[in-house]
Amino acid sequence: MIYADNAATTKLDIDAFEAMKPFLLEEFGNASQPYSFSRTVKKALKLSRSIIADCIGAYPEEIYFTSGGTESNNWAIKGTMLVYGDTRATITSTIEHHAVLNACAAIERMGYPVVYLPVDKKGIVHAKSLQKYICDNTKLVTIMFANNEIGTVQPIKELAMVAHKSGALFHTDAVQAVGHIPINVRELDIDMLSASAHKFNGPKGIGFLYVRKGTAIHPYADGGSQEFGMRAGTENIAAIVAMATALKKNVENISIFTEKLLHMENLLINMLSAANIDYIRNGSEERLHGNINLSFKNVEGEAMLHRLDLMGICVSMGSACDSVKTQKSHVIQAIDVPDEYAKGTIRISLGASNTEDEVMKIAKALIKIINTF
Amino acid sequence: MIYADNAATTKLDIDAFEAMKPFLLEEFGNASQPYSFSRTVKKALKLSRSIIADCIGAYPEEIYFTSGGTESNNWAIKGTMLVYGDTRATITSTIEHHAVLNACAAIERMGYPVVYLPVDKKGIVHAKSLQKYICDNTKLVTIMFANNEIGTVQPIKELAMVAHKSGALFHTDAVQAVGHIPINVRELDIDMLSASAHKFNGPKGIGFLYVRKGTAIHPYADGGSQEFGMRAGTENIAAIVAMATALKKNVENISIFTEKLLHMENLLINMLSAANIDYIRNGSEERLHGNINLSFKNVEGEAMLHRLDLMGICVSMGSACDSVKTQKSHVIQAIDVPDEYAKGTIRISLGASNTEDEVMKIAKALIKIINTF
Repeated sequence: MIYADNAATTKLDIDAFEAMKPFLLEEFGNASQPYSFSRTVKKALKLSRSIIADCIGAYPEEIYFTSGGTESNNWAIKGTMLVYGDTRATITSTIEHHAVLNACAAIERMGYPVVYLPVDKKGIVHAKSLQKYICDNTKLVTIMFANNEIGTVQPIKELAMVAHKSGALFHTDAVQAVGHIPINVRELDIDMLSASAHKFNGPKGIGFLYVRKGTAIHPYADGGSQEFGMRAGTENIAAIVAMATALKKNVENISIFTEKLLHMENLLINMLSAANIDYIRNGSEERLHGNINLSFKNVEGEAMLHRLDLMGICVSMGSACDSVKTQKSHVIQAIDVPDEYAKGTIRISLGASNTEDEVMKIAKALIKIINTF
Repeated sequence: MIYADNAATTKLDIDAFEAMKPFLLEEFGNASQPYSFSRTVKKALKLSRSIIADCIGAYPEEIYFTSGGTESNNWAIKGTMLVYGDTRATITSTIEHHAVLNACAAIERMGYPVVYLPVDKKGIVHAKSLQKYICDNTKLVTIMFANNEIGTVQPIKELAMVAHKSGALFHTDAVQAVGHIPINVRELDIDMLSASAHKFNGPKGIGFLYVRKGTAIHPYADGGSQEFGMRAGTENIAAIVAMATALKKNVENISIFTEKLLHMENLLINMLSAANIDYIRNGSEERLHGNINLSFKNVEGEAMLHRLDLMGICVSMGSACDSVKTQKSHVIQAIDVPDEYAKGTIRISLGASNTEDEVMKIAKALIKIINTF
C-alpha cells in the first residue's frame, strides 16, 4: 500500500509509540495523586508540556492539553465568546476546517455574529481584506495557519497585526502546520493556536491549545483542577508523552523533511506535465510541503480515488471530514476552480516517510487512470 | 508496590493493550476516509460501539465516544441546558464528583438554576428527597450511580422514575460503576450515562456518553460528522477498541470479581476490628465492591497517606481530583462525619488484581501507623 493521505492522519512515529508504552503499561498512576507512584507521571507531564512549548516558542504554562484539534478549535472560539457574555463579532475565513466553521455556526446560533472573509484564487486571506471588515466590535479573528485541502499558508503575522490593532484576539487553527512549518508564536504574535498530534505522527485523541498568558478565555471542561483549572479530566499521559516525542522529532527534522517533500512534489508534477495531463494545481506557492491538490479536466474525482484505491494508493478527495459527501468541497468552491476541473479534484499529501519510488508509482497510476477517462 | 487506589485510576488490562496496539502501529487510517485502508478501522469502530452498548443494555447508536468521564458529564449537563435556551432547573446532589458539581456551577453562571439535594449519613440521595424538590420547571436530574469516595450506590431506578414523572431527563455519572456493577440502562430507565475507560482497566483519555434515542441534547464539539454529528474530531480508534475490550472483560467477570473483592474487604475490616482500631467505615451497605473508606479517630489522614506511601502502599485521601488540597472533602462534609474522625479519612479502593496477601499487608501497615499516633 502507498499511503499518500498524510493531511488526513499520519502513521504514529515508532519512538512516540515506545515513549507511550511505559505509561500505558507500568506508569499508570493518576497524575493528580500525591503518592510517589505518581511522581514519574507528574514529571513526564511537566516535561512534555515544556517540550511542546519549546517547539512553538511558547511558555509551558501556555500549553493546555486537549483531546485534539477539533476540541482546541471549539474551545478557542466558544471559550472566547463566553468570557464577557457580550455579542462582539468573530471574523474567520470561508476556507477554514469544519471544526472552525461549525464552531462559528454554533456561536452564531447563540447570538454572536460571525464574518466570513473571502479568499483569492490561491486561497489566501489577505490582510487588507481583514482590515476592511474588522472594527472595534470584533473580539476574535480566527484564520487557519495552512489549509488542509490546498495547503495554502496564510500571512499569519500580518493578519495578527491587523487583529491586534483593532483590539481583537488572534487565533489560528494550526492543525496542518504544527510540526511541518517552523512556528514561533511570539514572533508571529499569536494569542491562541490549535494543534493535533495525529497530524504530526503522534497518536489520535490528543492535541493542545496554546493560549498566550493573560488571554481571557473561558474554561472548556469543568471538574478537577487539571490543566491549570481550564480543562478538567484525568491527563491522557501516554498520549501526551507520545505527542511531545513526535513533535520534537518532526520539528528537529523540518528542514530535511521539507527538502525531501519538495523534491517528491516536483517529481510528481513534472511526470504529470511530461505526460501532457490537463490539470490545475490548487493553492499558493506558499504551501504545506507535500500537499499536491490537483483538479483534472473532465474527470470524476470519486472514480479516480476508487481506482487509485484498487491500485493500493490512498489519497483524498476534499478534506478528510468531508469525504462521506461527494459534493464539491467548500475550499474548492471558495477558490473558484472552473467547473470542468472542480469535480476532478484530489488531494495527495505526502509525508516524510514516502519514497521517490512511491511517488513515481502514484504519478504513473494517475496518468493511466486519466488517460482512460 | 501495593496499588490500592483503583477508584483514582486502574492498570490497563493487558488484553486491552494488545487490542489497541495494531491500531497504534499498522491500522492508522482515518475512519472518515473512503479508501479500503480505513475499512478495518471503520469496522473496529462499529464493533466497539456495539460491544459497549451490549455491556450496558443500550443500542449502539446511543453510544457517543468522548475523551473521558469529565467530558461526558460536561456534555450531558451543558448539552441539555443549551437545547432550548430556556432557564429550567437542574437537580443534582451535594456529593457528586467535581466534574458534575463544577459543570453545574458553570451553568449557574450562565443563568440556569441548580438545586443540590442533601444526602443521609450513608451518602444516599433518597427518592423522596428528589420528590420534594422536583417540579415542572426541572429539566434535568443528574445523580451519580456510585460515589467515588465512599462507594455508596444510589437508588437509580427510583430516582429516574421520580425525574420522569415530572417530565425531567435523568442523567447519571456512572464513572465509578460501569464495569463494576451490572447496569442495564433500559431496566433502570436512564436517559444519559457517563463512563470513563481508565476506571475499568481501559486507557486514559477515552470514555463515552450514552444518550437514549430521542433525547434532545446539544452537540458537544462542532466540526466533522463523527459520532453521528454530535461530537466531532478524528476517532481515537486505538483507545476505543481498548475500552471495549476492557469493558467486555470486566463485565463478563463481574460476579467473580465481586466475590473476590468482598472477601478482601472483609479481611481488611476484620483485621482492623481485631486490633481494636477506632474507626468509622463510611458509605452505605450498598456500595462499590472494593471501596473501603475509613475515618480513624484523632489521626491525620495526610500523615497516614504519607507513611503508607513510604511503605509502598498507594491509597487516597478524599477524591482523586481533590488530593492537592488538604481540606475535608465535600463528601465527608455532606455525610457529617464527626470532626475527630473526619480529618483521619482515607480511601482504600481495591481492584480485582489485588491479592489477599496485599490486603493483609495494608491492614498491618494501617494498624502499625495508627498505633503510633
